[in-house]
Amino acid sequence: MVAIRNLYWTERIDAFIFGGLILASTLCGVGGAVPGGVRAADPKNRCQLQFGTTHKQEHSKMTKRAGRRSLRRRLAAASAAMVLVAVMFAGLSVSSFADEPKPDPAGTATGDKTSAVDAAGNPFVVAEPTDKTAPDYAQNKKAFDDYQAQAAKEPLAVKLADSVGHVRIATNMAWTLNTGYLVLFMQAGFALLTCGLVRKKNAAHLMMLNFAAYVFAFLAYYAVGYAFQFGAVAINAAPTNLGGVPTLNHFLIGSGQWGFVGGKGFFLVGPAYDAGSNVLTLFEVVFMETAGYIIVGAICERISFWAFLLCELFIGAILYPISGCWAWGGGWMSQLGSTMNLGHGYVDFAGSTVVHAVGGFAAMALAIILGPRLGKFGPGGKIRVFPAHNIVYVVTGTFILLFGWMGFNPGSTLGATDFRISVVAVNTNLAAVAGSAAAMLIWYFLFGKPDITMACNGMLAGLVAITAPCAFVSPTSSVIIGTLAGCLVCGGVLFNERVLKIDDPCGAVSVHGYCGWLGAVCVGIFADGTYGSGWNGVGAANYLGHAGQGVTGLIHGDTKQFWCQLMGATLYAVWAFGATFVVFWMVNKVKSMRVPPESEEEGLDVPEFGMPGYPEDALVTAQY
Amino acid sequence: MVAIRNLYWTERIDAFIFGGLILASTLCGVGGAVPGGVRAADPKNRCQLQFGTTHKQEHSKMTKRAGRRSLRRRLAAASAAMVLVAVMFAGLSVSSFADEPKPDPAGTATGDKTSAVDAAGNPFVVAEPTDKTAPDYAQNKKAFDDYQAQAAKEPLAVKLADSVGHVRIATNMAWTLNTGYLVLFMQAGFALLTCGLVRKKNAAHLMMLNFAAYVFAFLAYYAVGYAFQFGAVAINAAPTNLGGVPTLNHFLIGSGQWGFVGGKGFFLVGPAYDAGSNVLTLFEVVFMETAGYIIVGAICERISFWAFLLCELFIGAILYPISGCWAWGGGWMSQLGSTMNLGHGYVDFAGSTVVHAVGGFAAMALAIILGPRLGKFGPGGKIRVFPAHNIVYVVTGTFILLFGWMGFNPGSTLGATDFRISVVAVNTNLAAVAGSAAAMLIWYFLFGKPDITMACNGMLAGLVAITAPCAFVSPTSSVIIGTLAGCLVCGGVLFNERVLKIDDPCGAVSVHGYCGWLGAVCVGIFADGTYGSGWNGVGAANYLGHAGQGVTGLIHGDTKQFWCQLMGATLYAVWAFGATFVVFWMVNKVKSMRVPPESEEEGLDVPEFGMPGYPEDALVTAQY
Amino acid sequence: MVAIRNLYWTERIDAFIFGGLILASTLCGVGGAVPGGVRAADPKNRCQLQFGTTHKQEHSKMTKRAGRRSLRRRLAAASAAMVLVAVMFAGLSVSSFADEPKPDPAGTATGDKTSAVDAAGNPFVVAEPTDKTAPDYAQNKKAFDDYQAQAAKEPLAVKLADSVGHVRIATNMAWTLNTGYLVLFMQAGFALLTCGLVRKKNAAHLMMLNFAAYVFAFLAYYAVGYAFQFGAVAINAAPTNLGGVPTLNHFLIGSGQWGFVGGKGFFLVGPAYDAGSNVLTLFEVVFMETAGYIIVGAICERISFWAFLLCELFIGAILYPISGCWAWGGGWMSQLGSTMNLGHGYVDFAGSTVVHAVGGFAAMALAIILGPRLGKFGPGGKIRVFPAHNIVYVVTGTFILLFGWMGFNPGSTLGATDFRISVVAVNTNLAAVAGSAAAMLIWYFLFGKPDITMACNGMLAGLVAITAPCAFVSPTSSVIIGTLAGCLVCGGVLFNERVLKIDDPCGAVSVHGYCGWLGAVCVGIFADGTYGSGWNGVGAANYLGHAGQGVTGLIHGDTKQFWCQLMGATLYAVWAFGATFVVFWMVNKVKSMRVPPESEEEGLDVPEFGMPGYPEDALVTAQY
Repeated sequence: MVAIRNLYWTERIDAFIFGGLILASTLCGVGGAVPGGVRAADPKNRCQLQFGTTHKQEHSKMTKRAGRRSLRRRLAAASAAMVLVAVMFAGLSVSSFADEPKPDPAGTATGDKTSAVDAAGNPFVVAEPTDKTAPDYAQNKKAFDDYQAQAAKEPLAVKLADSVGHVRIATNMAWTLNTGYLVLFMQAGFALLTCGLVRKKNAAHLMMLNFAAYVFAFLAYYAVGYAFQFGAVAINAAPTNLGGVPTLNHFLIGSGQWGFVGGKGFFLVGPAYDAGSNVLTLFEVVFMETAGYIIVGAICERISFWAFLLCELFIGAILYPISGCWAWGGGWMSQLGSTMNLGHGYVDFAGSTVVHAVGGFAAMALAIILGPRLGKFGPGGKIRVFPAHNIVYVVTGTFILLFGWMGFNPGSTLGATDFRISVVAVNTNLAAVAGSAAAMLIWYFLFGKPDITMACNGMLAGLVAITAPCAFVSPTSSVIIGTLAGCLVCGGVLFNERVLKIDDPCGAVSVHGYCGWLGAVCVGIFADGTYGSGWNGVGAANYLGHAGQGVTGLIHGDTKQFWCQLMGATLYAVWAFGATFVVFWMVNKVKSMRVPPESEEEGLDVPEFGMPGYPEDALVTAQY
Repeated sequence: MVAIRNLYWTERIDAFIFGGLILASTLCGVGGAVPGGVRAADPKNRCQLQFGTTHKQEHSKMTKRAGRRSLRRRLAAASAAMVLVAVMFAGLSVSSFADEPKPDPAGTATGDKTSAVDAAGNPFVVAEPTDKTAPDYAQNKKAFDDYQAQAAKEPLAVKLADSVGHVRIATNMAWTLNTGYLVLFMQAGFALLTCGLVRKKNAAHLMMLNFAAYVFAFLAYYAVGYAFQFGAVAINAAPTNLGGVPTLNHFLIGSGQWGFVGGKGFFLVGPAYDAGSNVLTLFEVVFMETAGYIIVGAICERISFWAFLLCELFIGAILYPISGCWAWGGGWMSQLGSTMNLGHGYVDFAGSTVVHAVGGFAAMALAIILGPRLGKFGPGGKIRVFPAHNIVYVVTGTFILLFGWMGFNPGSTLGATDFRISVVAVNTNLAAVAGSAAAMLIWYFLFGKPDITMACNGMLAGLVAITAPCAFVSPTSSVIIGTLAGCLVCGGVLFNERVLKIDDPCGAVSVHGYCGWLGAVCVGIFADGTYGSGWNGVGAANYLGHAGQGVTGLIHGDTKQFWCQLMGATLYAVWAFGATFVVFWMVNKVKSMRVPPESEEEGLDVPEFGMPGYPEDALVTAQY
Repeated sequence: MVAIRNLYWTERIDAFIFGGLILASTLCGVGGAVPGGVRAADPKNRCQLQFGTTHKQEHSKMTKRAGRRSLRRRLAAASAAMVLVAVMFAGLSVSSFADEPKPDPAGTATGDKTSAVDAAGNPFVVAEPTDKTAPDYAQNKKAFDDYQAQAAKEPLAVKLADSVGHVRIATNMAWTLNTGYLVLFMQAGFALLTCGLVRKKNAAHLMMLNFAAYVFAFLAYYAVGYAFQFGAVAINAAPTNLGGVPTLNHFLIGSGQWGFVGGKGFFLVGPAYDAGSNVLTLFEVVFMETAGYIIVGAICERISFWAFLLCELFIGAILYPISGCWAWGGGWMSQLGSTMNLGHGYVDFAGSTVVHAVGGFAAMALAIILGPRLGKFGPGGKIRVFPAHNIVYVVTGTFILLFGWMGFNPGSTLGATDFRISVVAVNTNLAAVAGSAAAMLIWYFLFGKPDITMACNGMLAGLVAITAPCAFVSPTSSVIIGTLAGCLVCGGVLFNERVLKIDDPCGAVSVHGYCGWLGAVCVGIFADGTYGSGWNGVGAANYLGHAGQGVTGLIHGDTKQFWCQLMGATLYAVWAFGATFVVFWMVNKVKSMRVPPESEEEGLDVPEFGMPGYPEDALVTAQY
């Protein structure tokens, strides 16, 4: 272990230097892209179609060289700044006390006899009670002594418990990773869905936005986002199914039950170079990515690439992790049950608000800042409908998203030993089909035919809305929630377009924003109390006068939970809209985030990336 | 627990009211769609291309309003009817006896020490023998007494067994859900496969059929199908890997070993609001969906949407669940080993007949009722070949289906603690490649070139055929079965088109019908006796003179199993074809299930859904 | 068990007869395809577009009949030869000694108390020490005696351990199969990626190559490849997470720590008809397939189908399995730590070299033999850029590959009870995003715009490079490795095209060849010693002066590991390039592997498979 600890320190020091350099170059890509946006508008460049996996034009080197020189200066400055930031965060991650829990990067010290529990969650090992003033101290002390006495007689059983605890954690890690992979795969779903819904001239642009969202938001989350969100998770929300991640135990802002921002795990070094923590990292980073993909649907067909990357870095580093900490990182909202006596605290099982409403309302703010696409609203407010270009992509993308949601919701138990996973999976599907059926029927009644893209949006709306309540409600309630969401998304699309005059090409604001808000509120209405006993530390022994009562909604008798959900969901909407609007309103003042009008007319593919979505077809067209 | 039970009753009552309303509105979509079919044929509507995620035309409101008024009347009538039906089923689901097993929606009472078993299936806990007249009563009683005595000395070991049993069930639930997700994803495969095989003008139609199949068949299965199929599974086929689902214990029609239709779990309330049961629900609903997708390939390019929805509701509520109960729900066919001494009873491991032949022969009946597409068979029976429109979709769809089959077959153990999963997975792949190679070679010998779409169909044929025998045969036999299927599918496609003159655009009848039948028969030929000992309660101790002998086919010495498989597989084909033909022959008499000829000429996309598959391309074409 | 053993022998005998026949017909497809290639060039055939899933033209039967007669002769000869080969291999697989371990096809004897281990890998059962001369014999004997004495007092704990061991193996089997499925799904990713990157006229050709690669390489691996690679894995590299597969225990060439080719498990009969072994089969066959897909990207748009099938059979039967045995089958390279004192022996966690470099350098050899596509290099070496035809496919394919890599790398632990899986998953993603970001930035600096296809290639490059080191390095190092790979792939693409003048349409050589080599070398540089203690039997107790020190790279103090990696990676490159070049240089001498120039001009779809990728579009075009 000496060797490992030594390496661990070396590693840590190395890490900050390297990490800083990498992030620096990453961020400079954004700064550097500013002139690129300008250059892309240069008609000399735009008029050339450039293809293939290989090199590009040789000319206009002089201009570029000058641009590059200026870029190098920015690079140097940004690098220096980033190294400073990295070193600063390094200080935050350093644990200077000898009794700090040690990270376990090899995973060979995670999952022992203390992880062996039965179906109801009762541990095998009886822990020694520490609070001698507790009313049940004598009773607990006796249980502990009895266990100790018996354990001396059954050393093999105790030894075997180490294996059992290990297998239990393994089962849960496998579950969490496998479901996390499904969520990761949702990127293909979002890309195909949004690509299919836009015009052909922006097909490559859509694919690249979804692709780059993954890349750059991931880097931001790796650098600081994970630490902001989960850096203190062990304090109030230790994922015991994964071994508890005891090394993530410090709030950067706040403390105790009033935590606001986590403070350990920057650059995934030190306390976050741990097997249990990395399961959480993998699972949570793909959730953050989902928020990052959501905005694409509302801002596509007009945002410039550099501005988009800035949005993704903002979401991955700041917007998502901070509010994510409040509900999932053991932050203040999750603790409202203890601190303010508001039900089980704010509860969002898999992220109707934490993920979807944050993405959806950030998308709304960006869509407003960017303004509508050219020609969307004609004179007199006449609405022009732009054609989708590939319905096959749209439906396939929706299927992939449904598949991914089988990871999103059931995976959010962080373990297969929580058998509620099956109810979650069934509820999720039921809301999806109900939402879809509702949207088909509504469109049929309103406009005479079931609309395919609205059927897809209805399914996604149902999925978004069931994401928060999926573990707390019955199948019947899931059908109702899905139906409500299917109605809301139809209304929302029409409302945004006809009343608010917000141009949201793929309906992201309605699907993820409005229905996300609805989902979290539905927890406060439909939760039936069969699940969530002890959630956020509330009601393990007794709640609403019943032993083992879980999270309970309005129609099952808990008014406080409803108010908590209503206010919490609204706060998420306001936070996402407000923070995004303020930041990017300023950015947009400094430099317009939109591509030049001529790029928008031409389609963003070639001006931004030198390549249309269907290069050969474009070439053929160009020849005529 | 008091609280939970109270909630449970409230929930149940609520559920039937809500459930009825939801299903009512769902079904009315179908009734209501009838005039929609008429309206779609109205040339005023058809001549407009309508795009995007948004609103549609405003005109002809008068006509619509009248239509809607009539619709509202239907809606009211149907709602009333459905509430009655729901209340009726509620009665069936109510368990009025005090000693009924309680459902466990939170999953905190599922998986205890009785679930701890070793590799060979021997339980940890020794159960008390109850039948005092049994010849081995004395021996079993002694074993029980010894266990009791030792258990008193090893309380920690016994306590630990609760954790072990819990982890075992968790492992199995995770396996079953993960593989179920793969089966769910097959919808994308079916959609791309069939969409790619048809003409471009029906691309959106194909995507929407596959999409709507999922939505409406799911609702039907949720309402009644699951209860019909698995409502009595605990009687003869308890899935012990998942904890046994003891609450599903009542046949609606039949009893004991002669059960015909299950009778608990309607609307997933009451006895079906249970963690173990919901694992089964999730896994089985996606199997039902597969049958629902299969028919699409044979009836596309001419069926109207309302008729299609009716087909899906029929499959999800009636056709699939009832015959599914016979083999998988503990019904009469699975018990033929005990009741009629026919081998291990009818055995279909993952659904060559239960799923695929049912889908395939239902598709055959529908294709006959609908008749061939316009122009398919010219004067003098001359066959016209319609072009596929996208081979990339076809092959990608096939890849997705292969991927999904890794859930379909290995998942059908309902648990990873059955180590035969690996043999199943390898066999499934081997049959796929053998079927594909055979189809390529046959086409090469017959027509000079390997055909891509037939290579895909050959792979699917191999997969369908290995689905029943995958767990009972060796890899060598799998290669042979796959090869046979690859030959059969080629012959079947030619036979259907040239001899029977059935127009089956995607070859669904050959792939799923004929090869499904073949697969179940192959169990009776190739099963090698290494697996399935005790299957359906037959031969746990001794079979064919050997201890531990499993399901055995003709070439390994069991003639009875062969006859059972031959007759059973044929029965499935007859049932699916016959029931579907009778029902939809009558439906078609009342109102033609085909779209009007002018819609078929134009392509069904716009007349049925107001949107072509490639809207922007269609718009461009329209402009010229 | 008597019955099973009898069946087992019958099965074995049957198997070789059937197996031989099947493989014979398979291989004849290749030989038979030779005249097919010729016939395809016949302009009479080429000028007809043939569509659909059905029959083809009737004419020119006379020519075909003659061709078929000659084919039948070849078929007969080849069948005879193959039966002989099969019988020969049968002899190798027969285990004539009574004390040979028995295969366990039902899986009911796999996973007992000896499989129960704790987090650090310590077994529950204490084994009896056998070497009485060992210095710690007395100590071990006492531990064994103590265990025996205590076990007599705790029979229930010992009995329970059987359940625990069983669940542990079940968890690992489920993990390995689930991740294997993800790797299987990579075929869709490779197909879409490469199809999108080529010209439309070769779209069907690309899909069919990827499809046929799966089919024929699988058959070759089934017949002999698996036996060559893993037929002796139990000797030095027993996968204890899966139960150890004790029946695979014989080298065909070599022995002890100097094994070169495995020798058991031909046709998956006998010792390979085993539940544990089949988990390995499923997981490893899809890795082999990956190498088979890789070559497609470099040889497409000009290789004839028969030659391609020969390549796939060569890869599946010979090239991949033999060198795969060296590092993963317990072969000589993995043992260099013990035999030559070279670190922990050659280490490639998930196949940067074993899979990717082998595929990439084989692709390089084939691309050289085939020569560049017509018109690629103009007069004076001017490079012509061929347009990709669908960027949506390219990006979607990349997303699918990333998803599949979540199986590729984390699954390579062969078990979820190795908690390093989470670090592997996070590292894999980090390298992917770093590689992608680096490639975007490089292209931006070089050519003014981030290129979408290079961003995809950068991501794949990062994934390939992290594949070997993913388990041994920290997240920080992963970012660095990904960045290096992103740079290397850009340089490699330009170097191949501009300097070596190798025409590699999809960049397969750079992505998989160069970056694969880089990955294995990076193990020797960045491995931090936190993982891999005892890997390949090295350093369990002490290494580099530290207890528990794992695989360690240059910057953490182990020079020998670095040299071992450098030489080993280079050997893989040389082997793959050399063996492929020699074999196919000769093949190409006998008969040109390229299609005729007119087929290449037209696109290979119709001449080779009678069907374009977009048949309806082609038909429309043909009408004008």
